[in-house]
Amino acid sequence: MPAKGVLVAVTADVVIAGGGVIGTAIAWRAAAAGLDVVLADPAQGDGASLVAAGMLAPVSEALFGEGALLRVNLLALARFPSFAAELEQVTGHRVGLRREGTLAVAYDAGDYAALTRLTAFRRSAGLEAEELDSRACRKLESFLTPDVHGGVLFPGDWSVDNRRYAAALREAAASAGVRVVRDRVTAVLTADGADGVGSAGVADGAGARVRGVALAEGGEIGADRVVVAAGSWSGAVHGLPAGLRSAVRPVKGQLLRLRHPAGLPPVLTHTIRATVRGADVYLVPRADGEVIVGATQEERGPDLTVTAGAVHDLLHDAMSVLPVTSELILAETCSGLRPGTPDNGPIVGEAGPGGLLLATGHYRNGILMSAATADAAVACLTGRAPAPEWEPFGPGRFLTGEGVP
Amino acid sequence: MPAKGVLVAVTADVVIAGGGVIGTAIAWRAAAAGLDVVLADPAQGDGASLVAAGMLAPVSEALFGEGALLRVNLLALARFPSFAAELEQVTGHRVGLRREGTLAVAYDAGDYAALTRLTAFRRSAGLEAEELDSRACRKLESFLTPDVHGGVLFPGDWSVDNRRYAAALREAAASAGVRVVRDRVTAVLTADGADGVGSAGVADGAGARVRGVALAEGGEIGADRVVVAAGSWSGAVHGLPAGLRSAVRPVKGQLLRLRHPAGLPPVLTHTIRATVRGADVYLVPRADGEVIVGATQEERGPDLTVTAGAVHDLLHDAMSVLPVTSELILAETCSGLRPGTPDNGPIVGEAGPGGLLLATGHYRNGILMSAATADAAVACLTGRAPAPEWEPFGPGRFLTGEGVP
Repeated sequence: MPAKGVLVAVTADVVIAGGGVIGTAIAWRAAAAGLDVVLADPAQGDGASLVAAGMLAPVSEALFGEGALLRVNLLALARFPSFAAELEQVTGHRVGLRREGTLAVAYDAGDYAALTRLTAFRRSAGLEAEELDSRACRKLESFLTPDVHGGVLFPGDWSVDNRRYAAALREAAASAGVRVVRDRVTAVLTADGADGVGSAGVADGAGARVRGVALAEGGEIGADRVVVAAGSWSGAVHGLPAGLRSAVRPVKGQLLRLRHPAGLPPVLTHTIRATVRGADVYLVPRADGEVIVGATQEERGPDLTVTAGAVHDLLHDAMSVLPVTSELILAETCSGLRPGTPDNGPIVGEAGPGGLLLATGHYRNGILMSAATADAAVACLTGRAPAPEWEPFGPGRFLTGEGVP
Repeated sequence: MPAKGVLVAVTADVVIAGGGVIGTAIAWRAAAAGLDVVLADPAQGDGASLVAAGMLAPVSEALFGEGALLRVNLLALARFPSFAAELEQVTGHRVGLRREGTLAVAYDAGDYAALTRLTAFRRSAGLEAEELDSRACRKLESFLTPDVHGGVLFPGDWSVDNRRYAAALREAAASAGVRVVRDRVTAVLTADGADGVGSAGVADGAGARVRGVALAEGGEIGADRVVVAAGSWSGAVHGLPAGLRSAVRPVKGQLLRLRHPAGLPPVLTHTIRATVRGADVYLVPRADGEVIVGATQEERGPDLTVTAGAVHDLLHDAMSVLPVTSELILAETCSGLRPGTPDNGPIVGEAGPGGLLLATGHYRNGILMSAATADAAVACLTGRAPAPEWEPFGPGRFLTGEGVP
């Protein structure tokens, strides 16, 4: 029931807050499953999804103690190719999936020792990894500096062109009937009696159910189910349980888009992940000759500036392992906000009032997890259970402090 | 007399080919002197004039063996303040002239030895220079690294905000009645009888006179006097004597525009010219908090790409002497083409057919020389002699090989 004086411009089965790859993938699959979907985003596709390298890297991203995250990442990777194939078929556009694998290289002996330890851990988890000396690394990538100490090939870590992928998702969603509202969701509205003007609170008690969302420009969208997929802005949505509102923080990442000048053949085939005297840098080649170099990880709140120091450090580290980088054109410098969580895991599942679903907090792996997250979300929306790999990543793990300010 | 079938859309006393600071300054002063002026440029103000640091630096630019260039640069500097003051008065806009001086710093002992030799030469030419140890340098600029070996203050080297200056010139020219044609001058046309269709040749013999210019889109502008001020594109204008067409070459310069983030006080007061292990870099502060970092000098023809290596090197050298540079926002990377000549001097004066005037080849000093060049050009256009400092820089010095292919 809408508040007095507020226009309910739109109603739908599901309203999705956030039009990055997560929200758009969910929108597409939910619409394909027969649901009437509205997606709300003030600038669809203008967030972290476009400032990404598109690495599909469950293996080289796996860290000690993150076994559950590795399992859900592997689920996501296994799902990605068929999802991308359907997306390409529906839209007629290539999304630039590359399966050459990722070559992790260590610049000095200390970097190599760290890489060796991590590789042993990954191999113990059953992941494929091939250790290579410096010469073997250069056989795979001839432009690598001979100074590289050694490396490891992870054949199971791929990449996708995140911008083509995001654009294809938008097109697929539109074709499936998803309607887009260019406005920001400010609050999840509930139908638990607190429906006066400005009602945005969540009683969080038994029986409360969502009835839609409020928009920044004053309108509302009526829906029985609401998906919050607003990335690092998720915490700005009123009406989420308090523990969830503080669980997602922005982690700034700066990256560079380089291009080959006319006449220079492609300088890379594999994704390169390099550790240069303890600093991590990656270089991801695209089919169209672009090379993405990333990325910083900065705890600076919602700051989106591109800084001289970050650009210098990225170029310096990239040139240290691949000197020919200096000849490439610096086509773009950009900055985005990853939605980080306290345990680096995503937040996918139902929480708070009935009908509320979260799909956020994907941190460094939003592109990778988008297909599997869409599956999980559509399962929830259609009354089925998501894959068991998602069980550790429900919103409930951040609700323990509920009621405490 | 126009060729058959070609529209003479415009006639004027003077047509100026090129709308950078040189062409626009000439246009303004010529119109102020009572001449009817048309300025032709396909993208006025979009050339090298905007990709500049705006250093007014006759002193720290002076090199061994360039005494004549130093003298004309000093003439240009002496003229600049009154020219800028009149420009500010006419337009009501500030152009950002800064007179704090330039601090040249040397990173290591080798850099310092080179700076000391150059300083002795400059002082022998009567130029003011104050040698400073590392501590004294940091008293002037507190953000300089203590690693700087030493420096020299050149109080006579200033700077101007080249973009504000160029915009003010455009406005002043328009106010003075200058008409702008947004098209490229392809040829100087002569009235020596060769006025058939496509006539663009210059007989270069006695009696030949200009009658206007041909434009890329097919029109003509009729005028008794033509000024070629097309910077590094001057050689593309047909109808110039052959020696002049090959005298100007593009010398690529890449530079960066940095900005202070909110909360950071200005990190610079003086222009810094640093030599970092043999590599030159400059940092030029603006009143609005911008800092320009430049510049590469590359012989790459008309290539305007911004390269990863150049951006890295500029940032690296800037951060070496002023570490706080890393905290600044990288607002823009850009690339321009300086009009270089074989002897690094400008080409200002009459040549070829009667009524043809050249004002080009200003290389690294176009902003500095713009006011004095306008004076010299207007003197030529009104039948007076330019200042004697211009005598060595006439077009005649490049005409010796005329007739030889």
